[in-house]
Amino acid sequence: MTIRSYAFEEFIERVRSFHGSAAPGVVIGGFMVEMAYQHLFEEGLFDAVCETNKCLPDAIQLLTPCTVGNGRLRVINMGRYAMALYEKYQGEGVRVFLDQTKLDAWPEVKSWFLKTKSKKEQDYQILMQQIKKAEAEICSIQKVKIAPRFLQKQHRTGFAICPRCKESYPITDGAICLGCQGEAPYVVS
Amino acid sequence: MTIRSYAFEEFIERVRSFHGSAAPGVVIGGFMVEMAYQHLFEEGLFDAVCETNKCLPDAIQLLTPCTVGNGRLRVINMGRYAMALYEKYQGEGVRVFLDQTKLDAWPEVKSWFLKTKSKKEQDYQILMQQIKKAEAEICSIQKVKIAPRFLQKQHRTGFAICPRCKESYPITDGAICLGCQGEAPYVVS
Repeated sequence: MTIRSYAFEEFIERVRSFHGSAAPGVVIGGFMVEMAYQHLFEEGLFDAVCETNKCLPDAIQLLTPCTVGNGRLRVINMGRYAMALYEKYQGEGVRVFLDQTKLDAWPEVKSWFLKTKSKKEQDYQILMQQIKKAEAEICSIQKVKIAPRFLQKQHRTGFAICPRCKESYPITDGAICLGCQGEAPYVVS
Repeated sequence: MTIRSYAFEEFIERVRSFHGSAAPGVVIGGFMVEMAYQHLFEEGLFDAVCETNKCLPDAIQLLTPCTVGNGRLRVINMGRYAMALYEKYQGEGVRVFLDQTKLDAWPEVKSWFLKTKSKKEQDYQILMQQIKKAEAEICSIQKVKIAPRFLQKQHRTGFAICPRCKESYPITDGAICLGCQGEAPYVVS
């Protein structure tokens, strides 16, 4: 099984370069994306949802046209290791998840995924061998339909200049920008 | 001015390949990231905050070691075209923002940024020429310090199997996973 057009080792290199390390989660994510594509009914414009903010978003960004910055990948962190690709207008698509009921044959993957071993006790080599061998066998797939409210594109209605920070912001956010309303992560000096 | 190690046209190609098109926002974002790096005091481990979910996250992901999936880029959407790089332990860093007070010399950038022209009225060629010429002149920089609560890493305390969907989820989310609590974006069939 290739991961889109990549051989396993090629993909590892891509992951290392983008993500910073060959994290097991991103590598498994590669097989998840591949599995999703294999079950998509037809050609079309597919957007993505990712149900975790750990690792998996990077596999999606590397292997699909969907990125956080182009708005085609939405991360809705529900703490599940799962992602969906769906046709962007109708919302029909497939969801792939790492299926913990399928992990008994892959003990190192199981202990990594369920965090039953400390990082120190894990054997990275064995873990990666098992991931490579398991491919998408540890995943399951479902048909899904994205709810209409998630399909609507947010249209910008205009910008205002925030009277406090003097920066441009979406006028619908209120009389001052969200940053000045207290959402900025900075220490106020 | 290069954009990290890239010449302008090289960066455009990288943006096209990752983001899907040479979007003006990502290209300006390249100069913003470059400006931030030029003002960082020393070598260190720097994490990133992005204040918009439009375009800019992709410039950060292309040019820094920070991605959404590796947890080093946090998108806190406040609708401001701004980003910060900060030392991950102490939170000291720099914030760069697209400064609307500096746009008068670059009318096509100004009308694009403040959306005072429709997309049809915009001239993409002139816009890109002005972006290339302006480099980081349309941006301003500030010292910032990230508030301590944003520096703390979320530690996982363990996983449970959701009795409803049978998937693994963080035990701190409750008796069932967040997806089954109603946060999933799918139509329930």
